[in-house]
Amino acid sequence: MSLAKKIKIGIVGGTGYTGVELLRLLAVHPNVELTAITSRGEAGMLVADMFPNLRGYIDLPFVDPAKADLGQCDVVFFATPNGIAMQQAKTLLAAGVRVIDLAADFRIKDVATWEKWYGMKHACPELIEQAVYGLPEMYREQIRGAQLIANPGCYPTSVQLGFMPLLKAGVVDVKNLIADAKSGVSGAGRKAEVHSLFAEAGDNFKAYGVAGHRHLPEISQGLSKMSGQQTGLTFVPHLMPLIRGIHATLYARLTSACDLQQLFESTYAQERFVDVLPQGAHPETRSVRASNLCRIAVHQPQGGDMVVVLSVIDNLVKGAAGQALQNMNIMFDLPENTGLEVVPLLP
Amino acid sequence: MSLAKKIKIGIVGGTGYTGVELLRLLAVHPNVELTAITSRGEAGMLVADMFPNLRGYIDLPFVDPAKADLGQCDVVFFATPNGIAMQQAKTLLAAGVRVIDLAADFRIKDVATWEKWYGMKHACPELIEQAVYGLPEMYREQIRGAQLIANPGCYPTSVQLGFMPLLKAGVVDVKNLIADAKSGVSGAGRKAEVHSLFAEAGDNFKAYGVAGHRHLPEISQGLSKMSGQQTGLTFVPHLMPLIRGIHATLYARLTSACDLQQLFESTYAQERFVDVLPQGAHPETRSVRASNLCRIAVHQPQGGDMVVVLSVIDNLVKGAAGQALQNMNIMFDLPENTGLEVVPLLP
Amino acid sequence: MSLAKKIKIGIVGGTGYTGVELLRLLAVHPNVELTAITSRGEAGMLVADMFPNLRGYIDLPFVDPAKADLGQCDVVFFATPNGIAMQQAKTLLAAGVRVIDLAADFRIKDVATWEKWYGMKHACPELIEQAVYGLPEMYREQIRGAQLIANPGCYPTSVQLGFMPLLKAGVVDVKNLIADAKSGVSGAGRKAEVHSLFAEAGDNFKAYGVAGHRHLPEISQGLSKMSGQQTGLTFVPHLMPLIRGIHATLYARLTSACDLQQLFESTYAQERFVDVLPQGAHPETRSVRASNLCRIAVHQPQGGDMVVVLSVIDNLVKGAAGQALQNMNIMFDLPENTGLEVVPLLP
Amino acid sequence: MSLAKKIKIGIVGGTGYTGVELLRLLAVHPNVELTAITSRGEAGMLVADMFPNLRGYIDLPFVDPAKADLGQCDVVFFATPNGIAMQQAKTLLAAGVRVIDLAADFRIKDVATWEKWYGMKHACPELIEQAVYGLPEMYREQIRGAQLIANPGCYPTSVQLGFMPLLKAGVVDVKNLIADAKSGVSGAGRKAEVHSLFAEAGDNFKAYGVAGHRHLPEISQGLSKMSGQQTGLTFVPHLMPLIRGIHATLYARLTSACDLQQLFESTYAQERFVDVLPQGAHPETRSVRASNLCRIAVHQPQGGDMVVVLSVIDNLVKGAAGQALQNMNIMFDLPENTGLEVVPLLP
Repeated sequence: MSLAKKIKIGIVGGTGYTGVELLRLLAVHPNVELTAITSRGEAGMLVADMFPNLRGYIDLPFVDPAKADLGQCDVVFFATPNGIAMQQAKTLLAAGVRVIDLAADFRIKDVATWEKWYGMKHACPELIEQAVYGLPEMYREQIRGAQLIANPGCYPTSVQLGFMPLLKAGVVDVKNLIADAKSGVSGAGRKAEVHSLFAEAGDNFKAYGVAGHRHLPEISQGLSKMSGQQTGLTFVPHLMPLIRGIHATLYARLTSACDLQQLFESTYAQERFVDVLPQGAHPETRSVRASNLCRIAVHQPQGGDMVVVLSVIDNLVKGAAGQALQNMNIMFDLPENTGLEVVPLLP
Repeated sequence: MSLAKKIKIGIVGGTGYTGVELLRLLAVHPNVELTAITSRGEAGMLVADMFPNLRGYIDLPFVDPAKADLGQCDVVFFATPNGIAMQQAKTLLAAGVRVIDLAADFRIKDVATWEKWYGMKHACPELIEQAVYGLPEMYREQIRGAQLIANPGCYPTSVQLGFMPLLKAGVVDVKNLIADAKSGVSGAGRKAEVHSLFAEAGDNFKAYGVAGHRHLPEISQGLSKMSGQQTGLTFVPHLMPLIRGIHATLYARLTSACDLQQLFESTYAQERFVDVLPQGAHPETRSVRASNLCRIAVHQPQGGDMVVVLSVIDNLVKGAAGQALQNMNIMFDLPENTGLEVVPLLP
Repeated sequence: MSLAKKIKIGIVGGTGYTGVELLRLLAVHPNVELTAITSRGEAGMLVADMFPNLRGYIDLPFVDPAKADLGQCDVVFFATPNGIAMQQAKTLLAAGVRVIDLAADFRIKDVATWEKWYGMKHACPELIEQAVYGLPEMYREQIRGAQLIANPGCYPTSVQLGFMPLLKAGVVDVKNLIADAKSGVSGAGRKAEVHSLFAEAGDNFKAYGVAGHRHLPEISQGLSKMSGQQTGLTFVPHLMPLIRGIHATLYARLTSACDLQQLFESTYAQERFVDVLPQGAHPETRSVRASNLCRIAVHQPQGGDMVVVLSVIDNLVKGAAGQALQNMNIMFDLPENTGLEVVPLLP
Repeated sequence: MSLAKKIKIGIVGGTGYTGVELLRLLAVHPNVELTAITSRGEAGMLVADMFPNLRGYIDLPFVDPAKADLGQCDVVFFATPNGIAMQQAKTLLAAGVRVIDLAADFRIKDVATWEKWYGMKHACPELIEQAVYGLPEMYREQIRGAQLIANPGCYPTSVQLGFMPLLKAGVVDVKNLIADAKSGVSGAGRKAEVHSLFAEAGDNFKAYGVAGHRHLPEISQGLSKMSGQQTGLTFVPHLMPLIRGIHATLYARLTSACDLQQLFESTYAQERFVDVLPQGAHPETRSVRASNLCRIAVHQPQGGDMVVVLSVIDNLVKGAAGQALQNMNIMFDLPENTGLEVVPLLP
């Protein structure tokens, strides 16, 4: 354990799944000190009374946001619904606190687009420009110096990492990309809603949001950045009966011959958290369960011109809390994998 | 219950999931009489001792194939692994018995293709031509007069019914069709294999067979028939952690403007077992659980030129045993839904 | 289908799981006619839009209770939360309508006990006495002539049927009975509550209500009736990660030697919906899934003096809607199994 | 990380679930060096090709037992079926290697009893006496000096830890103990068997082995040691549809008044891996998922004389691999929790 001064951490909104997941990881991170976990509704309750897995690891209570002196923190994570971080980020940044928003407030550069998809007025459009999109495999250098991180969505992480090698290399038809993505139920959060009940989502599978899902503009923005031109994407999310995991099945048409396996391996050769599987492999969601890894395989069925990329992550880790910590590690000059070497849980 | 003479039924290989599912449906079918259920390995055991759901409904034991006088049956179902029906069909047909094969022996018209994908020599190629592919929505008239039915595979049923309106109408690019299909674990059968264990397939999701799956040539043959030309299909099957259900997500590029909702509704207006959902709907696998229905929705995301079709079936019913009974009803001039009006089980 | 006059049915509160289950069964019951399904919150919505399994089977909308003329029905089912039926039963009974309450309002004969456990004042104590507890295996004759049925709870059904042979025969120590019961999540209903979310109840198992559960006084009342003396019961309910099913494991100490297998078989020899398994068997919840059966096995481990009874039901069928229909069939002189011969779904 | 010499580890039989779980934990244990992982059937295969969660953490292949020089190890774990360790332990012990058997070969002191329940002749009865039963909360001092550890079974761990305070204090009727225990499917191992298939064990719950289960004599031996007299136990195991977790619900009759909460808290006050929950709590299996913790709550329903203890563990960790490592840590004078501070995974 480091002798150096610990990073003082605040968490706004610790009662959801990204909150408890952040706490699971922070509880054994050697370089941090938890200062405050806020919740308007649960102030006074011990965090471990809500999340019994944390008994013995986290002994703080939730505190009322009004009483939490977040300005003393080195970094504050927002594990809140959309629309909260944009109201508080400015004050914190002015106090010299770095901010990592796990929600969507700063992910989309075009304010009008954001307001259309999120159905509210943006409270702080002037910060959007300086916010860095926290996908380290794409923006590591900007993250290093960032004050404000827009942590990517879960679907966007799995889809962007899967398409990135193809788009950067310019070897596919970017106008007709397809992402058929499947998410575990924890992606819907810890809200009490009928469609997320065990008796509704269990033993069942369905697509949803085919007409349009909020992650579509986020993904499109990222893919266009990678390819340097406007991309066309059909994105179909599905809900699957498991708790953690995203499996993205990606389709693109090859426009130039290319050693796909070699392209993917070389793109990610230096990345600790992207694992390109051997030729012919099929990654399973459980192979990354509880870990910050994204595992990827690339196929060219029957040697035709359709590329199929399979990309899996744990939506709560690489798709949320783990990636947020990875960003924090980069921002504070720690080894990028500090506190993130959790071996995936199998079976 | 009808006073008419009952149809005498034989089942070869009743120890798998298509076998028990046939029995569940036949147990309350008003026009049939179960004559024999064979099993080499379990001869003498009561069927209901293996499948406790059948206690009180089926009181027959499994009988040794050698001792079962299947030639006395009106129809024999093969609920066997691939490669069995082709060895016995000829004798039965010669005895005037109609044969419905739930396995793949007679599904593919091109013998060489079949032998390549199934890895064995075909024992009876001369019967392939006369075998009728048992997809009633496509081949009802031929089924009516058939002696030998090749009952479609589960993936092929869901994929073909989803693409059929588009292909018959000739409104999509048939060279770049994509079928991203997801199956419940019962699709793998009741074989003791590690990858089908609860602790392996549970809480997990993965693609498999991306390089090539046996249902690919079967689907391609069917799609080409529908469109009248050679189609190009990318087929990616996935295993999902639920017992029954297939969800096929289909992608095709529109080549002519078209009222898709109206196209689908009119195509299936007379079909008892295909239910086209209202515009904007997302069918769930549980909405057809235990029933012979295929429910379908068609989407055109953001009004672009990509059509997305969502098609769900219960793989053991419309994808196997239920469709086999539907075929039997047609062959014996019964109302097509006889014994098949099982209301789906939800939740 | 019978040519006789159909029974006119009303359902109050059709938006929960017992409601949809009633509808699944009534949809194919040959002697009924659905008149009205009420819902305050969802009036105007098609029932099949909420429960897509019913598309093609039920084409009624929910109607506002104020507009439903339930007085025209022959029988009204209350599939409501506790405390509703007791407010409306009197008027309906006065109009000659028979009432079957699937909730708890009339299950407990002692008003004070009811008010203590259910935390409200009873609106109609004068009806409690005339209400018949709808467990046909115990009270068939009274049910036949009843106007008002208190349909038993799910745990109480499985536990009482399991203990009944022992208590009637007087062969066990009635002061130290133990019922270790496990329920699927649908038992908690279709309410949006955090503890019933897939991500909370999935991949998890826990006891709850050990200090006291509302079904305890109901079970105790029933067991005392069976044994003719005050019984002592420890009841521990558990929540298990499956949708439908109750498994009750019952413990009692033998006080007289007894052929247990024979005792159970003879007790239930005439019962269509209680199936005593052969010696040494272990009933599975799936062996009764979707059906009105209760399957029971009785054990005497190592020949000691502890009797272990295993009793399984589908909590939504024999534990709720199916038993309610069984009661209706008895009340209207129909064969008791009319509309209830659904073969259990396996796998 | 310690600068001291690393403990050289061998694992015999690394292809099952206890094997992969040992590897998950050892992969990040700071004081060990993996020397060999043997498998007769899979020699040559990379361990991470069988268990993809280990990619990047374990780069060893399985080696043929004949070629593994296990005599060079400091400690060898047997993660094998029953009956293997007893054939190899003697040679290893003679070479000065410490042995930890995760199977049952050395758990039962009475050879005749062992042979009866395990159905084979014991190959090495002379070692049974010196083997130490590896339940640290009961036998820590003996473990410290042991050469040969019989690591407890999963059910026995949860049941013994739950009963221990009551039996040591002598406050219950020891002749009528009941353990109603529920296990996740991983407890059955990674063998390809029909009853462990997803389509068999999923969405299902059942008791099994009521007539007698191999863990019964192991538990009885332990309980009798704790109470100092012969105990009487009824043990009913159940299979539940989740991967990891055991929930034991224990029943005992109080014979002396006693502050149960205080008794449990004081018994385990110094134990890192036993967590006594506050009064009224209900531990969930997920609250210990992936961790070495046992969480316990004690109840006295309605203030009667029946004590109900709820005890949960992860069967693969505290019930197998984690406890084995805890034993290793004790034997090698490491802090007992080294490598075992994995925060439970929730959701």
